[in-house]
Amino acid sequence: MIDYDDFLSRAAGRMQESAIRKMGGVAAHGRDIISFAPGFPDPAVFAWSEFRAIAADLLSGKDGSVLQYGPTRGYKPLLEALGDILAERGISVPAEQLLVTTGSQQGLDLVARVLSDPGDVVLVELPSYTGAISAFRNVQADMVGVAQEADGIDLDNLDAVLRRLRGDGRRVRFLYVVPNFQNPTGLLLGRQKRARLLDWAARHNLLIVEDDPYRDLYFEDTAGESAIRPIKADDREGRVVYLSSFSKTLAPGYRVAWIVAPPALAAKFEMAKQASDLCTGELDQRIVYEACTRGVLAQQVPVLRTHYRRKRDVMVSALTRELGERVSWPAPRGGFFLWATLPGGIDSDAMVAQAVEHGVVYVAGTAFFVDGSGASTMRLSFSAPTPDRIDEGVRRLAATILDALERPRASAASRA
Amino acid sequence: MIDYDDFLSRAAGRMQESAIRKMGGVAAHGRDIISFAPGFPDPAVFAWSEFRAIAADLLSGKDGSVLQYGPTRGYKPLLEALGDILAERGISVPAEQLLVTTGSQQGLDLVARVLSDPGDVVLVELPSYTGAISAFRNVQADMVGVAQEADGIDLDNLDAVLRRLRGDGRRVRFLYVVPNFQNPTGLLLGRQKRARLLDWAARHNLLIVEDDPYRDLYFEDTAGESAIRPIKADDREGRVVYLSSFSKTLAPGYRVAWIVAPPALAAKFEMAKQASDLCTGELDQRIVYEACTRGVLAQQVPVLRTHYRRKRDVMVSALTRELGERVSWPAPRGGFFLWATLPGGIDSDAMVAQAVEHGVVYVAGTAFFVDGSGASTMRLSFSAPTPDRIDEGVRRLAATILDALERPRASAASRA
Repeated sequence: MIDYDDFLSRAAGRMQESAIRKMGGVAAHGRDIISFAPGFPDPAVFAWSEFRAIAADLLSGKDGSVLQYGPTRGYKPLLEALGDILAERGISVPAEQLLVTTGSQQGLDLVARVLSDPGDVVLVELPSYTGAISAFRNVQADMVGVAQEADGIDLDNLDAVLRRLRGDGRRVRFLYVVPNFQNPTGLLLGRQKRARLLDWAARHNLLIVEDDPYRDLYFEDTAGESAIRPIKADDREGRVVYLSSFSKTLAPGYRVAWIVAPPALAAKFEMAKQASDLCTGELDQRIVYEACTRGVLAQQVPVLRTHYRRKRDVMVSALTRELGERVSWPAPRGGFFLWATLPGGIDSDAMVAQAVEHGVVYVAGTAFFVDGSGASTMRLSFSAPTPDRIDEGVRRLAATILDALERPRASAASRA
Repeated sequence: MIDYDDFLSRAAGRMQESAIRKMGGVAAHGRDIISFAPGFPDPAVFAWSEFRAIAADLLSGKDGSVLQYGPTRGYKPLLEALGDILAERGISVPAEQLLVTTGSQQGLDLVARVLSDPGDVVLVELPSYTGAISAFRNVQADMVGVAQEADGIDLDNLDAVLRRLRGDGRRVRFLYVVPNFQNPTGLLLGRQKRARLLDWAARHNLLIVEDDPYRDLYFEDTAGESAIRPIKADDREGRVVYLSSFSKTLAPGYRVAWIVAPPALAAKFEMAKQASDLCTGELDQRIVYEACTRGVLAQQVPVLRTHYRRKRDVMVSALTRELGERVSWPAPRGGFFLWATLPGGIDSDAMVAQAVEHGVVYVAGTAFFVDGSGASTMRLSFSAPTPDRIDEGVRRLAATILDALERPRASAASRA
């Protein structure tokens, strides 16, 4: 018998399965389970007929390069189109600062590999996105958490954490933030805090990695373009590495996202990508490019805002109706997620099994905390299920939670 | 000014641009340049009309999951289809040993990350595939080369190299081999050597990473199914990690390839992939799956054998006609590459500039050697150019080489 553990790298020894992807598996296992677990966009609003027409044009065979290997940086016209998209966000960069990635997850992986050695410290929000946590863990970075407030990262805590780490002689590499409708909390980083983060990075000679997949999906009752201006837009010095994606607006099945970075870093991301997958799928990039230039994306975005806002409304109403003040959450002003805090004493991780019994599933909050906290929190995605299913799912979730609240009393009663 | 070097990881400090991809860039720079550089398949033989019909069916919108995030392991029906494809190659494995990857390049990256720590030794052939070299370099592995003979890797040299490394206390992780129509030499590993490699791995408790992208493309005048049986087919013990791909048979633009590995390693590859790109493009996987089940792949492969064999014939005839005995090469029995050795004294790396002047480009052999040798060798890909362009390209190459052979004499004459 071969002991394969002998062959594993130290990094592999520490690798773990993503909690979110595991939950995705639960939902896939037969039965009628309503899943609030994965942050999947809703295929009901994908631009199917437009994609179909685009694919038919591209696959005519007239242009052989549509199915060929492509440049590692990305399909050149798409890079140019990205320049226009970024300009609308206030970010003006030449093509040498751009790189197409195979989903934002690859962007995070490239960032981790290029910017962090084993034992280096990466600062992340408490809680933070699990995909980023996995990418940073896989290069054996030490993640240290920074608290969040209602308007995002707590700058006093950020200062205190950095001071402590540097006092301990630790090498801190960058701060990872999701300023717009954060995954998992849905929080929006305040405008002044964005400016202050740039000052902070300059003062301490650090980089900021800004992950911005949800920015287009603001809900117009409480958020607008001015609230979502990227940190990168005011980055005069080149301290911000910016990531964004078409996964939430066009479709994740294409795996097309991008990075903006100072040229010296973009060149290294390109080399790292070359060895990671040579290039992002060429057909996917062409379809996305055509969707940009034919106006599909522009026509899609307002539809999505209304669509997901309505789902948020259904989830918020159902939670209010079913659980009242037992559960609290910051009102999502955009994105896919509602972040719920349960009454103390409920362990959302342990409760997953009961939730599945009730026919509903979520992601337990602990998955998003690098410091082991978050036991009474959970992430609920309202993006994929239909409004009816959201309503029914919340009913099931409420039944699960009410059961859990009853149980200590019940077992106390049986002891009496 | 920010000094970005301060922020780079040790791995990033060592990253380099791929020589092949750089050459691809040369060919793209306007002018009439015939490129023998990148190992691109020929889009003229892609199954365009079938792909078009498949895409139209898939993008009807009936099945929303076509453009959704997919499982990290891969699209389940595709995994099952892979089981059938592998069975035809003599490899019988359950689904738990399979993983879809975003091109074989991702497979190599996962192998590198899961199986090698910085400073570990990875054994590679002299010469070896640059994409593998990049992937191993990016995890800071030390690559040590093993000589090749006419029938592939030199087993005596392999033993000697391993003995020396272990004598020096080095930790050797695995041997990377491309047994079928190797990139870059086109060599076919002998049948007995395949069996002996398995014994060798067992005797020394090592793993073999077998990369097999070209196996379907044998040329029936000199090779057949029995010559290309994978090492993995006779791997009773679980010592072989096997990689293969649809890039050379269907199209590289889909980025769909796969790994076969013992379950304990496959699970780690899955975790590493989760953090690398979450999943391979779902539309791409579905198209490839449909191409398998609708018989497109089966109908394609014999066409490709004839198509590429004809191109090889044109290149071999042109080289013989233009350069006679000045240049030598092992006759390619399959695949995309002809490996040429020039008269001593010619530096193929330095000659690239002259070749571009003559309107032709190739990859200098040094790119494939981890020991700095190979100065008088070059890789010529006959896969992408048309037969006429191959013929003309060889003319240009011959003119370049004859010039280079003249030059020392010319400069000697001018000195006289």
